[in-house]
Amino acid sequence: MTTAALSAGLDTTWVVLTAAMILLMEGGFALLEAGFVRHKNNVNIIMKVFADITIGTLCFYFIGFGLMYGADFLGLIGTNGFMLNGNLSHLKFSISLDTLWLFQAAFVIAVVSIVSGAVAERINFRAYLLYVVLMTAFIYPIAGHWVWGGGWISKLGMLDFAGSAVIHALGGFSALAAAILIGPRKGKFTSGGTSSIALPSNLPLASVGAFLLWFGWFGFNAGSTLSATDERIGHIAIVTMLSAAAGGAVTMIYTLFRYNRSDAPSVINGSLAGLVGITAGCAFVSDQSAILIGAVSGLLMMAATNWLEAKRIDDPVGAFPVHAVSGMWGTIAVGLFSTDGGLFTDGGWHLLGVQLLGLAVLCAWGFLLTWFGLKIIRLWIPIRATEEEEEVGLDISYHGIMAVHRSREFIKYEGPYTQIQQDDFDD
Amino acid sequence: MTTAALSAGLDTTWVVLTAAMILLMEGGFALLEAGFVRHKNNVNIIMKVFADITIGTLCFYFIGFGLMYGADFLGLIGTNGFMLNGNLSHLKFSISLDTLWLFQAAFVIAVVSIVSGAVAERINFRAYLLYVVLMTAFIYPIAGHWVWGGGWISKLGMLDFAGSAVIHALGGFSALAAAILIGPRKGKFTSGGTSSIALPSNLPLASVGAFLLWFGWFGFNAGSTLSATDERIGHIAIVTMLSAAAGGAVTMIYTLFRYNRSDAPSVINGSLAGLVGITAGCAFVSDQSAILIGAVSGLLMMAATNWLEAKRIDDPVGAFPVHAVSGMWGTIAVGLFSTDGGLFTDGGWHLLGVQLLGLAVLCAWGFLLTWFGLKIIRLWIPIRATEEEEEVGLDISYHGIMAVHRSREFIKYEGPYTQIQQDDFDD
Amino acid sequence: MTTAALSAGLDTTWVVLTAAMILLMEGGFALLEAGFVRHKNNVNIIMKVFADITIGTLCFYFIGFGLMYGADFLGLIGTNGFMLNGNLSHLKFSISLDTLWLFQAAFVIAVVSIVSGAVAERINFRAYLLYVVLMTAFIYPIAGHWVWGGGWISKLGMLDFAGSAVIHALGGFSALAAAILIGPRKGKFTSGGTSSIALPSNLPLASVGAFLLWFGWFGFNAGSTLSATDERIGHIAIVTMLSAAAGGAVTMIYTLFRYNRSDAPSVINGSLAGLVGITAGCAFVSDQSAILIGAVSGLLMMAATNWLEAKRIDDPVGAFPVHAVSGMWGTIAVGLFSTDGGLFTDGGWHLLGVQLLGLAVLCAWGFLLTWFGLKIIRLWIPIRATEEEEEVGLDISYHGIMAVHRSREFIKYEGPYTQIQQDDFDD
Repeated sequence: MTTAALSAGLDTTWVVLTAAMILLMEGGFALLEAGFVRHKNNVNIIMKVFADITIGTLCFYFIGFGLMYGADFLGLIGTNGFMLNGNLSHLKFSISLDTLWLFQAAFVIAVVSIVSGAVAERINFRAYLLYVVLMTAFIYPIAGHWVWGGGWISKLGMLDFAGSAVIHALGGFSALAAAILIGPRKGKFTSGGTSSIALPSNLPLASVGAFLLWFGWFGFNAGSTLSATDERIGHIAIVTMLSAAAGGAVTMIYTLFRYNRSDAPSVINGSLAGLVGITAGCAFVSDQSAILIGAVSGLLMMAATNWLEAKRIDDPVGAFPVHAVSGMWGTIAVGLFSTDGGLFTDGGWHLLGVQLLGLAVLCAWGFLLTWFGLKIIRLWIPIRATEEEEEVGLDISYHGIMAVHRSREFIKYEGPYTQIQQDDFDD
Repeated sequence: MTTAALSAGLDTTWVVLTAAMILLMEGGFALLEAGFVRHKNNVNIIMKVFADITIGTLCFYFIGFGLMYGADFLGLIGTNGFMLNGNLSHLKFSISLDTLWLFQAAFVIAVVSIVSGAVAERINFRAYLLYVVLMTAFIYPIAGHWVWGGGWISKLGMLDFAGSAVIHALGGFSALAAAILIGPRKGKFTSGGTSSIALPSNLPLASVGAFLLWFGWFGFNAGSTLSATDERIGHIAIVTMLSAAAGGAVTMIYTLFRYNRSDAPSVINGSLAGLVGITAGCAFVSDQSAILIGAVSGLLMMAATNWLEAKRIDDPVGAFPVHAVSGMWGTIAVGLFSTDGGLFTDGGWHLLGVQLLGLAVLCAWGFLLTWFGLKIIRLWIPIRATEEEEEVGLDISYHGIMAVHRSREFIKYEGPYTQIQQDDFDD
Repeated sequence: MTTAALSAGLDTTWVVLTAAMILLMEGGFALLEAGFVRHKNNVNIIMKVFADITIGTLCFYFIGFGLMYGADFLGLIGTNGFMLNGNLSHLKFSISLDTLWLFQAAFVIAVVSIVSGAVAERINFRAYLLYVVLMTAFIYPIAGHWVWGGGWISKLGMLDFAGSAVIHALGGFSALAAAILIGPRKGKFTSGGTSSIALPSNLPLASVGAFLLWFGWFGFNAGSTLSATDERIGHIAIVTMLSAAAGGAVTMIYTLFRYNRSDAPSVINGSLAGLVGITAGCAFVSDQSAILIGAVSGLLMMAATNWLEAKRIDDPVGAFPVHAVSGMWGTIAVGLFSTDGGLFTDGGWHLLGVQLLGLAVLCAWGFLLTWFGLKIIRLWIPIRATEEEEEVGLDISYHGIMAVHRSREFIKYEGPYTQIQQDDFDD
């Protein structure tokens, strides 16, 4: 066995295993979101995640990967590599093209899953499927090309190791655009100016989701080395853990003292915010910076949640606070704390400037493309569920079934997949 | 550190990690099946999976492994290696015997878990335990010897990389035999010729199961290289992903247009069908073939589900459509699309013929051994729950407890593990 | 690529991946415990696990790691390495300090999660947070120093490969002390001398937890090699599997014949007991010994459960039977069955004596420090929930929310994190 063969095998298995961990995060997204929304929309939100992982995968295969990693055209776009065909010799990775593709596919699916949460409980399902195509074939891959595919932002020197900006801020601003355009859930904001809350359908389920996401994040961040002999892996893993812990701890303590109870959804989202916040800088900042980044991520997440309420923007699972706000903070934090070039560690403003510029572009790109993309989709089919569909619940409306049943007996049906009437259900 | 030691360490950790992923699939089976069956049988089906993983492991250790990987006798059977003893120098793997055993144990447990779904809600629990012994000590190991242990089918040149035939088709036909012999659940098929459906107890739970299975499948397929320096690992992983995505996408789109709703159980089973379908060919077919294999797997799964309904065969979780039908298709697809010897890629009929022969033998073996095996077990104890046990639910009947309780207070009991009466339960 | 770089990369990725698997065990603990306790305390127990993983991580970073792995002082305590600073050149591991830290952090979190189960449904939440600090910063790290950090017990030659004693027996005796001091749940033991049981809120959820724990245990035991080229990895993995299978199988069969039903909580805890039992000896005992160790672990777990009932000690999830009793047995079993020095394999009494001595010290240390630690905490805040908090349920009392809601509409609230009244809930 030559060392070259060993090295190739080691890198391949490392990336395949971490890619599988990231794909398991889809289970995490599904359960987190299902747990946070109302019971009548549980199946729908899980089916949206299935749309991400099935349709999204295929779109990225046929179109997205080429736009992201194909031969560069003016720093703007990739131009070959669709279906993994063409001359991709400009990609200098130690892993095979197949392995690289799998890892990147896991990323694109995560981006669109961020959006799925913000539009929960009210988006038209067919419109969502079209949006999945738009995001996984075009919006994310083009922006990804700019930062990771050799495009213009990468040439400026922006540092976004595993995607606080490219994945989370872009996904989070896309989520914001979609949430605003589609409007709040019926009953969320009453005319008197007060808002109200939907009780989460299942917090233990949401917690399973959070633990799966946490687990997958080690693949997300450490796997982004794309090489098992990258000496930063241990450091990436420890700062990922510390930032997540800080984000969760600060929300647990803060809500305990401020509201006299440790608020479970805040703690869950605080831990995730810590993970999002460290995603850009995990290879660039110190342990102590990671704890600070995570703690601030948790606090910003809570502030952003209140800001959305005040602005009467309805984001049922907190996609914008967790992904966009912590993602922005994490990207900026690289400019502040990077051991090489950070404002507070090195004294230079250059990196911070580049981070802010790249971040602004990515946030705007996600917001605008989603905004106008949904407007175009709306020309064809409604992007919002009808009042009746929303009232009945998207599970019955779009999938003909509820999430949980306790009935002991069989019910009649007239043929495969016949609409089951709601009063056939015992809960 | 020598390269030989590095290579051994790399292969060992790769196989141990992928084996652990496959073992986590048992959690996937348990939840998928529990989510699909009625609430009153949730505990029972999970306990059946615990029987697979506990009793099945021990049977494979004491008997099955030797029959499968022991020194060959006439191409029919292994003859040593029971409890890992004896001269096993004929096994030429780069990993240790212990590591090989663990990986194979994860496989045998999966086979019997396939059957557990088809007999859900009505098999006698003690009879099931005996069947676990039969399957994990004899039925699967002997067939496994033919294909993977140096037996007669392997000598013909059959290609079944990770077991579309040996695991899934054999398991699925065993499931069919058991489902027919035990008969449909009470109330499933009414005298008027119409059938009826049981509402799934918990679709989010079933979805967790599907995501765990999907995650584990990367271990199942890519781990089957049994060596981390196998250059096919990246390719195996990508085609696994593409086929699963195609299976899920096609069922999502098809049910949306055909029935005006995306049917959640179909999408879940469609994704799994895509995974089953690619299991034989993951090392042998192209990306594009994988997408086709997955899409056809999804459609065949739906057709087979309807066929079972028409034939009045009761398979509560779709074990036959998912595992047997997609497994058959996947095995045949190797004969059609294999880049080396496939009918459509290479023009030769030989491989297809071998695939069909091997497949027919394995399906018949699973069906007949299960059929007669259960008949023999029936001489001793009933294989079907009594009408009362089934009516009350197998959870109370065999385990003295329901799956979910909301009661706030304690209840009295007369000693450890006393039968809890059903009216002690508040749901 | 040099072999040294390859070796470092291989070791690092192995330990990072197994550490991630162990951290996923926190999801396992959360769900197992949530599933076993009453519905009204589901959120609370999950939040306790979040406290373990967030606050515990930070305490171990700032204080615990230094006490455990810092430069030795008189065999009693480590004296530097706080925040990973200082000269730690005495640590001779092939992996980086960061990687070592992550793996050890996953361990310390597991220890305190053991305790969280025993005090379920009645501990004051703020007191628990203080206890997390105590355990993760002091109690476990100091004992860990003695055995794994170069302290006095390690010098005696005690063998505890992955922590049957240091993790499980110490954690289990801490759990016992806490359970006794805090007292039984209201209504658990009635005045007439009979006891009663709380119905588990969700057995499928508990099962997900068990499968996640089982999966993570491969990381726990095999990862404890801290090197991927350790030739024992395959053996460690197989005996881990065999012992777990034996523990689960014996409880399944025993309860089936003794009580005429296979008791689900016993089977779940029996499998876990098998895993705990083999944790000390996984690198030292044979396959057959592992099966015996697992089977005895399962039986001892059941006996200890009955013993706690008889002693009127309330341990809602069985933390003491699973972790302390199986952990003790596993530690002693090394002295009996170790292939090098075991009483039954080698004939010597020395190793057994050392094991017993070390075990006694660790159990006493956990029990006493927890006992007096909680007494000191009690000087400041009550360690037990008030009668009303316990009656209402800790979810509402400490977190202002229940675990599961079926309501279809929004409810008003007066500001962020306002106390939600219990009658706002529909179940």
